[in-house]
Amino acid sequence: MKYSKLYSKTIKEIPADEVSKNAQLLIKAGFVYKEMAGAYAYSPLGIKVLEKIKQIVREEMNAIEGMEIIMTALQRKELWEKTNRWDDEKVDVWFKSELKNGTEVGFGWSHEEPISEMMKLYINSYRDLPIYVYQFQTKLRNELRAKSGIMRGREFVMKDMYSYSISSEAHEEFYKKTIEAYLKTFERIGIGEDTFLTFASGGAFTQFSHEFQTVCEAGEDVCYLDREKKIAVNEEVFTDEVLEQLGLKKENLEKVKTAEVGNIFNFGSAKSEELDLYFTDKNGEKTPVILGSYGIGITRAMGVLVEKFHDERGIIWPVNIAPFTVHIVEIKGQNIGEGEAQKLYEELLSKGIEVLWDDREDVRPGEKFADADLIGVPYRVVISPKSLEQGGIEVKKRNESEAKIMKVEEFVELVS
Amino acid sequence: MKYSKLYSKTIKEIPADEVSKNAQLLIKAGFVYKEMAGAYAYSPLGIKVLEKIKQIVREEMNAIEGMEIIMTALQRKELWEKTNRWDDEKVDVWFKSELKNGTEVGFGWSHEEPISEMMKLYINSYRDLPIYVYQFQTKLRNELRAKSGIMRGREFVMKDMYSYSISSEAHEEFYKKTIEAYLKTFERIGIGEDTFLTFASGGAFTQFSHEFQTVCEAGEDVCYLDREKKIAVNEEVFTDEVLEQLGLKKENLEKVKTAEVGNIFNFGSAKSEELDLYFTDKNGEKTPVILGSYGIGITRAMGVLVEKFHDERGIIWPVNIAPFTVHIVEIKGQNIGEGEAQKLYEELLSKGIEVLWDDREDVRPGEKFADADLIGVPYRVVISPKSLEQGGIEVKKRNESEAKIMKVEEFVELVS
Repeated sequence: MKYSKLYSKTIKEIPADEVSKNAQLLIKAGFVYKEMAGAYAYSPLGIKVLEKIKQIVREEMNAIEGMEIIMTALQRKELWEKTNRWDDEKVDVWFKSELKNGTEVGFGWSHEEPISEMMKLYINSYRDLPIYVYQFQTKLRNELRAKSGIMRGREFVMKDMYSYSISSEAHEEFYKKTIEAYLKTFERIGIGEDTFLTFASGGAFTQFSHEFQTVCEAGEDVCYLDREKKIAVNEEVFTDEVLEQLGLKKENLEKVKTAEVGNIFNFGSAKSEELDLYFTDKNGEKTPVILGSYGIGITRAMGVLVEKFHDERGIIWPVNIAPFTVHIVEIKGQNIGEGEAQKLYEELLSKGIEVLWDDREDVRPGEKFADADLIGVPYRVVISPKSLEQGGIEVKKRNESEAKIMKVEEFVELVS
Repeated sequence: MKYSKLYSKTIKEIPADEVSKNAQLLIKAGFVYKEMAGAYAYSPLGIKVLEKIKQIVREEMNAIEGMEIIMTALQRKELWEKTNRWDDEKVDVWFKSELKNGTEVGFGWSHEEPISEMMKLYINSYRDLPIYVYQFQTKLRNELRAKSGIMRGREFVMKDMYSYSISSEAHEEFYKKTIEAYLKTFERIGIGEDTFLTFASGGAFTQFSHEFQTVCEAGEDVCYLDREKKIAVNEEVFTDEVLEQLGLKKENLEKVKTAEVGNIFNFGSAKSEELDLYFTDKNGEKTPVILGSYGIGITRAMGVLVEKFHDERGIIWPVNIAPFTVHIVEIKGQNIGEGEAQKLYEELLSKGIEVLWDDREDVRPGEKFADADLIGVPYRVVISPKSLEQGGIEVKKRNESEAKIMKVEEFVELVS
């Protein structure tokens, strides 16, 4: 992509009420635009990052036989009344409105209810199970405060998966598979090292739910990490009894602020009983379906990445989810042909490498360098009279300070 | 994909209030699920079709330098008041709700206002123009009645593009390019022959807007077609004066029911003036930006396809947007090895051909054939003792009645 064609140029001014670091950087660098507190639009740069995160999540969910679907934002009152989650006293994040005929409707903040209701159409016998479905849904939540940028929004993208299993044992097996798939996902996104399987409070059916918490100063949770065992305990269940149960020793634990990037939960048969979701088992018995739910905050993960990977000059995207792999800075001069940068751009594109080319005229090199640092593409490549004189292009990684001169072929090999 | 793994099996019962043919067929065949009137969820099959339509639209919008973004559903009252479109008396499809502090918010039924407001951040000089942006947005519209299935929903996916140009001439040039891109898009989707560039009522700036109307009995519009000239006139502007102006003769026109699949519109400088969106031109003069808006109903297009391409047995998807290219019906028998269908399935997949394999046990051939017709994949391939005896597989196109025996290699060549 040519930078001159990109409307969302870097900007200096950010909204006065924007206190969150991730949103400040993303707005400045031109990835997002603040519509209102907790609701952000995504520019072509922002979409590229979001889609990369989504694609990694999609691949990992498909790998455990998840099937992608998409539910609706609009929600029916009667359905949510069945599980006692319509009342604002019970669920305080509903946005509600009404149809022309006065029928109340809600906007989806979660989707266990409608998906499970839908499954009543398709689940009759044990032969119809298991079913694993997921969606990338724009959730709407009427949060009292929304001050964490894209880490906690009133409107945000979540991957939510639901499993419908024949028994607790079958559920447990899939639940464990999902834990592995989640760890792999966070690894691929670039936060694997700092993301911990975390014991948190459970529900009617299980003592614990499991969260995936990423060490992050801007996070809203507090966890106790055992770095060696690679697990954590959310402070909400941090008792001597729990530690003993998990075989953890207080002296090995580290108290840190964290952001929840994923959460998995066993509903057992509770929701199925409320919604009347039963199947006929092998013996002809009517049996409630066992339900699990598995979330990953897609926009939140993007916010966490920015919080974790930035310096005073801007964002430092991990390679796997960077909007581009290479950012070409063109510096014109007397001995540089008109077409040199273009040639490089096209050569990299032809090798399947994603490139942002800062082709702007009348912009000083210093400004181009500052913008490259702010945007945070992993490789900055300068093509200038000086680099050509030295026999190539000047390559610098965003997270290193040393640049070096390389031949184009050498560089292509490096990033392929 | 194996049919046994797909939860959204064909069903016999459809919701009693579902009067629309497209929704009836899509529900029966397992592509959509009705959440409420005008709001449908999409199953793995439904998503596949939607994504194919979106991808064609995306490619054509990218080809005319459109850049993909995504705005928010949540809308600010103050913004829409500037253009006098907040009041329910002016716009009667708003869903509205409020934040915890009592601030009113709306849910996006259109996005000219927020996108243009955002552009004030990025447009200063003539050097920043033109800008072409588009999104695939889930629009929310509080329609009084919603009886056309996925052709007119309370919640639906639209591709909306906006152009920001320096002058009426520059605008006009892009507008014409978009017409070509739209015609190509509808051609690729499979409705090119029956889709007409249509003159419809304009606004403050232009006598006409342009619609893309597809001949369709279930449509809500009435148009007069000149099939030879490949243009149409919406009845809302059907006067002798207009016909003369367009050089059309009444006797050459055919009155038909149509569905609007696209609409393009010139706002001139009107909206920019209301929203204070100006740029500095080459002479240093403050000048309003010229705005165009260009919609394609993605879910509606899917509905139109079903309305146009079905018979008494089910849907007949055009090849380009079919969920799969091949539907394998496996019929077991004495002389058929266990692995024959699997071998065929894997061979086709390895050639990059999308396959649905009806691998169900204990289902009669007749039921499998009926389901294949209902789902509407372009090629049905039967592998059975009889077909193997005759030396291959039995291939039948969904829109033809004759089947023939082919060798696998022959078939692969045909569909590649």
